[in-house]
Amino acid sequence: MEDMIEKQVAEQLQIIKRGAAEIIPEEELKQKLYNSIKNDKPLKIKLGLDPTAPDIHLGHTVVLNKLRQFQDLGHEVHLLIGDYTGRIGDPSGKSETRKALTEEEVKKNAATYEEQIFKVLDKEKTITHFNSNWLMKLNLSDALNLASKYTVARMLERDDFHTRYKEGLPISILEFMYPLLQGYDSVELKADVEMGGTDQKFNLLVGRNLQKEYGQEPQVALTMPILEGTDGVQKMSKSLGNYIGVDEEPYEMLGKTMSISDELIIRYFELVTTVPMEEIKAMQEGMAKGELNPRNVKIKLAKELITVYHNKEEADKAEAKFNLVFSKGDIPDDVPIVNIEETEVWLPKFLAEQGLVPSNNEGRRMIKQGAVKINREKYEEEEVTLENDMVIQVGKRKFVKIKLN
Amino acid sequence: MEDMIEKQVAEQLQIIKRGAAEIIPEEELKQKLYNSIKNDKPLKIKLGLDPTAPDIHLGHTVVLNKLRQFQDLGHEVHLLIGDYTGRIGDPSGKSETRKALTEEEVKKNAATYEEQIFKVLDKEKTITHFNSNWLMKLNLSDALNLASKYTVARMLERDDFHTRYKEGLPISILEFMYPLLQGYDSVELKADVEMGGTDQKFNLLVGRNLQKEYGQEPQVALTMPILEGTDGVQKMSKSLGNYIGVDEEPYEMLGKTMSISDELIIRYFELVTTVPMEEIKAMQEGMAKGELNPRNVKIKLAKELITVYHNKEEADKAEAKFNLVFSKGDIPDDVPIVNIEETEVWLPKFLAEQGLVPSNNEGRRMIKQGAVKINREKYEEEEVTLENDMVIQVGKRKFVKIKLN
Repeated sequence: MEDMIEKQVAEQLQIIKRGAAEIIPEEELKQKLYNSIKNDKPLKIKLGLDPTAPDIHLGHTVVLNKLRQFQDLGHEVHLLIGDYTGRIGDPSGKSETRKALTEEEVKKNAATYEEQIFKVLDKEKTITHFNSNWLMKLNLSDALNLASKYTVARMLERDDFHTRYKEGLPISILEFMYPLLQGYDSVELKADVEMGGTDQKFNLLVGRNLQKEYGQEPQVALTMPILEGTDGVQKMSKSLGNYIGVDEEPYEMLGKTMSISDELIIRYFELVTTVPMEEIKAMQEGMAKGELNPRNVKIKLAKELITVYHNKEEADKAEAKFNLVFSKGDIPDDVPIVNIEETEVWLPKFLAEQGLVPSNNEGRRMIKQGAVKINREKYEEEEVTLENDMVIQVGKRKFVKIKLN
Repeated sequence: MEDMIEKQVAEQLQIIKRGAAEIIPEEELKQKLYNSIKNDKPLKIKLGLDPTAPDIHLGHTVVLNKLRQFQDLGHEVHLLIGDYTGRIGDPSGKSETRKALTEEEVKKNAATYEEQIFKVLDKEKTITHFNSNWLMKLNLSDALNLASKYTVARMLERDDFHTRYKEGLPISILEFMYPLLQGYDSVELKADVEMGGTDQKFNLLVGRNLQKEYGQEPQVALTMPILEGTDGVQKMSKSLGNYIGVDEEPYEMLGKTMSISDELIIRYFELVTTVPMEEIKAMQEGMAKGELNPRNVKIKLAKELITVYHNKEEADKAEAKFNLVFSKGDIPDDVPIVNIEETEVWLPKFLAEQGLVPSNNEGRRMIKQGAVKINREKYEEEEVTLENDMVIQVGKRKFVKIKLN
């Protein structure tokens, strides 16, 4: 019995740890998982959402996917829509005070969130809360009581506060109240785990400490990495224009995915898809050895995303359209088709056999000159692995298209 | 007309400035006084009282006397009993968080305050407020709005916060809220002037700034010096035991006053009595020239205090008792009485005339030797001003007591 539980804890933990940045503290999470399995009581996993962003993008799904994994393990997701705090502005992680939203804006944004979020989460295992439910009831005395639980020095340890204080940039005292209110939400929810990006670590720990102050078992803070945007440099964000929205049209989604740098492919697979880690590792090795064309791996990534946020059919259609538009380029419609059996070929000889060059030697010379292209890209090797639909071109006018039998 | 008003402003300002540490800014106070006189509208002078101290002592009366002067000039005093804030503790000026009072303690202390305070203030021109009246009605959102009006950096400029932060001592975020609440009281009262000790300067200026934020004409901050206790070193405070309480028995009050060092006499006269400045200056000069015995000036000070906090009769009785007990010392009860007309005398001759010495020359020699005492203190001058009840002694055994006719 004990062994069984320990085994399940280990299994769950392995899934939870995939892609996670930090689990603070991991030992407590283990204990919570143990108790959850033993007592058949799901853990409460909290995610706070500040309803300022009207559109969810892949950056947000890093955390959402983790929540989905928790749900698949039998746990409960508690979404906390910060409708009250959103109205006072959330300066968290920003170096300036953000403008407070109107009540109407907050409501509209919250609705948009819910609509988009259930593309990833299991609606049945998700409970949505609005913090105005309890924060509206707090009076000055409650606020002061909350303020008494934390010191100025500890609050100034938060990276952005620290930096702004050092640089002489203003921090309003209101901004010190915000993490306390976010933490108070954890007290109200009696959260077991609170999730967030690594930039939320401080706030998650405030919640943890406040729960202790209020005599509760403290939540575990689970942070996920901040996803880089399609530029591969800055964090994905709507305002930077480097985002892939979960509401975007399939073909737009594919196009943006194709634009990411090769270095990001595996990170995206790990953080924003449910493709098993073994498969992801195999792709990583394939690309490292040159056996897999990163372009094709990106197409697979795009199709995974389109399948989740639209459906499989749309994913296939987007791929077909992409091949039609990009793989063809200025290749004429009537390119002769060559049916082949053998994919590993010596290119000069193949070119000669197909009548694209007069001889093997002439073939080698054309390759060296850079006059040979495969799928519109210059190809300067003599060895090649033929693939279905591959278009081989010599000079400007001579083409063949490969069909594998 | 204008000239008349200007003259009155100058007169009021002169009275207000007596003993004041800082008036910030003085120009605005002038303008307010001008408008007050012109429109026949009294200024609202605010004093915040934190109801933690059950007994008022002379230290408190420095500010109370100034308030009384404002009342005598026709202005209104608004006492702000911090019954709400007192319940959350007032760490102002302290290097540690003070324990919050119970509601009962606050009420009891507030009652004691009122009882004592009207010994100085004119009850008719005093309006007492309890800040729970408006603070009880504030909700979280109001508190956050208030918190948004001030920055962390500005709050950390307050001396005690700055010191504690530097020294790594904890400052709770609640403590940052307290000056804001005190300032909010000024907004509610629409105060024209807020008074306090120099240690309250920062808080008074917060009130001034908050009034601006709330679109009001800002209050002038008027600070008074912190009165040294009877030890002449530390500020007068009940916990240090160096205080003179306004509720103390007349004779106790006199005894404590007699114990202050000579250096403090004039400061006490200026700050805690209503004796005119010209008279105080004359006493100062008299003591400097040796024409006045500091002991006698202290008796006058004590009688001034007893007259205010008890009555004239008690003051006289206390003085008589003091003279009986202290001025006598080892002087026998049957000292011969000498009735005299002339008070300005040449002491050697006087001593000879009274038979205390055989000759004028012997009188001069005794004085030089230090064998002559007046009221038990060595007297080394040849000129003397005789006073009623003065005891003149030569050697150990020879005495006369002066009676003025």
